[in-house]
Amino acid sequence: MGGDIGLPVTIPASVEFARRFPDARLLLVGLPDAIEKALAGSRDVPRDRLEIVAASEVVTMDDSVEVALRRKKDSSMRIAAQAVKDGRADACVSAGNTGAWMAISRYVLKTLDGIDRPAIATSIPNQKGKSTTVLDLGANVDCTAEHLLQFAIMGAALAQALDHCERPSVGLLNIGEEVIKGNEVVKEAAELLRASRLNFYGNVEGNDIFKGTVDVVVCDGFVGNAVLKSIEGLARMLSSIIREEFKRNPITLLAGAIASPVLNRLRKRVDNRRHNGAALLGLRGVVIKSHGSADSYAFGFALQRAREAVASKLLERTNLSMAQIRQQGIPTNTHTNDAAISLPRAAGDSA
Amino acid sequence: MGGDIGLPVTIPASVEFARRFPDARLLLVGLPDAIEKALAGSRDVPRDRLEIVAASEVVTMDDSVEVALRRKKDSSMRIAAQAVKDGRADACVSAGNTGAWMAISRYVLKTLDGIDRPAIATSIPNQKGKSTTVLDLGANVDCTAEHLLQFAIMGAALAQALDHCERPSVGLLNIGEEVIKGNEVVKEAAELLRASRLNFYGNVEGNDIFKGTVDVVVCDGFVGNAVLKSIEGLARMLSSIIREEFKRNPITLLAGAIASPVLNRLRKRVDNRRHNGAALLGLRGVVIKSHGSADSYAFGFALQRAREAVASKLLERTNLSMAQIRQQGIPTNTHTNDAAISLPRAAGDSA
Repeated sequence: MGGDIGLPVTIPASVEFARRFPDARLLLVGLPDAIEKALAGSRDVPRDRLEIVAASEVVTMDDSVEVALRRKKDSSMRIAAQAVKDGRADACVSAGNTGAWMAISRYVLKTLDGIDRPAIATSIPNQKGKSTTVLDLGANVDCTAEHLLQFAIMGAALAQALDHCERPSVGLLNIGEEVIKGNEVVKEAAELLRASRLNFYGNVEGNDIFKGTVDVVVCDGFVGNAVLKSIEGLARMLSSIIREEFKRNPITLLAGAIASPVLNRLRKRVDNRRHNGAALLGLRGVVIKSHGSADSYAFGFALQRAREAVASKLLERTNLSMAQIRQQGIPTNTHTNDAAISLPRAAGDSA
Repeated sequence: MGGDIGLPVTIPASVEFARRFPDARLLLVGLPDAIEKALAGSRDVPRDRLEIVAASEVVTMDDSVEVALRRKKDSSMRIAAQAVKDGRADACVSAGNTGAWMAISRYVLKTLDGIDRPAIATSIPNQKGKSTTVLDLGANVDCTAEHLLQFAIMGAALAQALDHCERPSVGLLNIGEEVIKGNEVVKEAAELLRASRLNFYGNVEGNDIFKGTVDVVVCDGFVGNAVLKSIEGLARMLSSIIREEFKRNPITLLAGAIASPVLNRLRKRVDNRRHNGAALLGLRGVVIKSHGSADSYAFGFALQRAREAVASKLLERTNLSMAQIRQQGIPTNTHTNDAAISLPRAAGDSA
């Protein structure tokens, strides 16, 4: 039901996805009449693999987390997450309100062992023609060093699962040559990462996201969100400037027409729709967030990411990596030393 | 002496600047022989307005702040900052090591009243064809709410001075729709800003830098540095992709040649050399940092920014605004309430 456009985007993308992957079965969660109507407009619908699951409420883009979580208990988001919880679905995807989607999926699914807080991760295309996984993008502000370590574990598992990096390199986003190199949290996180069995590269800077210096860039959610929104803003400005300049007058229009094969290739290379589908990591289920403004082409990629994450066992990889790092004796949990939850340590057990 | 290239960039730019502004007088601080040699290669040098000031040492890009500050006491940076301190110069400009330049200029010049820490600010071109002043870009990590207020005061004064905004609007960089809207420091800073007489717009997100939503965007140095480096990285990647695509084969080369008037206009519109020259704000003197990789065209803009900051009385504007906000009774200083430095309050005096 979600996203800026809703069913006219999600339904055609789902139909196309089902046609493309004959082993896929989709639960379309939402207002049944609206979904039926949207399906009626599509041709060649493999109805045997598209099941409508009724939800009586819809979380809007403006709903607060409070409203979404406490007052709309029969929302499509809630029912979708519950389907994963109950094992009826392997993954769930929404293009709706990010905060609500995070809160609901966390509430319903809970976090994996050793994960304090889920994180949001996305893939950003880099100069090497591959992509860089960046997290957290806004779920967590005020992170501890242990949180950053958890992000690294989750992000590396995601890069393994989706980008087929066998041993993804991990960089810690830090500031450059300026006066003070990073704050205390980042310095501490670097020590944890260095001690861990992850393939830790060291500190990286913002431009390394695009250089492709590492496979995974870890930062707190405040920084990650600011970076993501800024690069989206720059990309939008540049593409509108390019359009403006080619539309300036008949001569520039002609130049644009002549250059159009090049411009089309360019557009394809930087088309961020192919990277649509942020992962909400650290939950006991595969949860994907599509960009709210995604069209059906882009939404299809979010569905594919969900499918790939399941097929390549994202959760198992995350669990395995977490267990191995704990076995190294590295504190992965912020509250490890809280009296209330600390347990007597056994050999090889640090958390 | 500074920057990736050094005198072959700074000297021609200085000569050109002196020719362009007949009222300008330049002190060229550094190794005299090297400067003489570089000057000898330039034509039409207005030697009566270019004075060489000897320094026996040069801070390198790799020097630590410690080395630059304590071991190279006769560095060109040190002598240049001292010239401002002594009133021999109105402003100083360097393309060298940012950390060292910040530390030395702070050590020599000290901060303005009410400023705990200097900040680095730059102008980023926005979609409105104007520019957005963003600070801090890396001088300060772990800022308090009061520091962010100080950045706002300094940034607004800079936008008044250089961009001739009469009453610059100020936005506080925050995260968007996601789970938790900002951390405690940002929330607190928003309250201080709302109470102040600054033209506070409210929270903005990364993309607002490019939309031109506000004249000044305030954030802590960790976030600002990550954002700045990221957008530099994206810009570099896109320009190399554009070049690659137009150089793919003879046909695309021809398309590029035909489209070249458009591409040249584009290049000019997004040419960040015209925005070269970050301001080191909050010091008792105008201090400008040129990008290390600047060419002489770009370095000329850094010199111009120094000139404009002096001509438009940047420091006086900052002092005035700070005094007015203190008079409002708003705490501008982080240590206002420290017992050791608190003074009995007089009416209308809050700090």
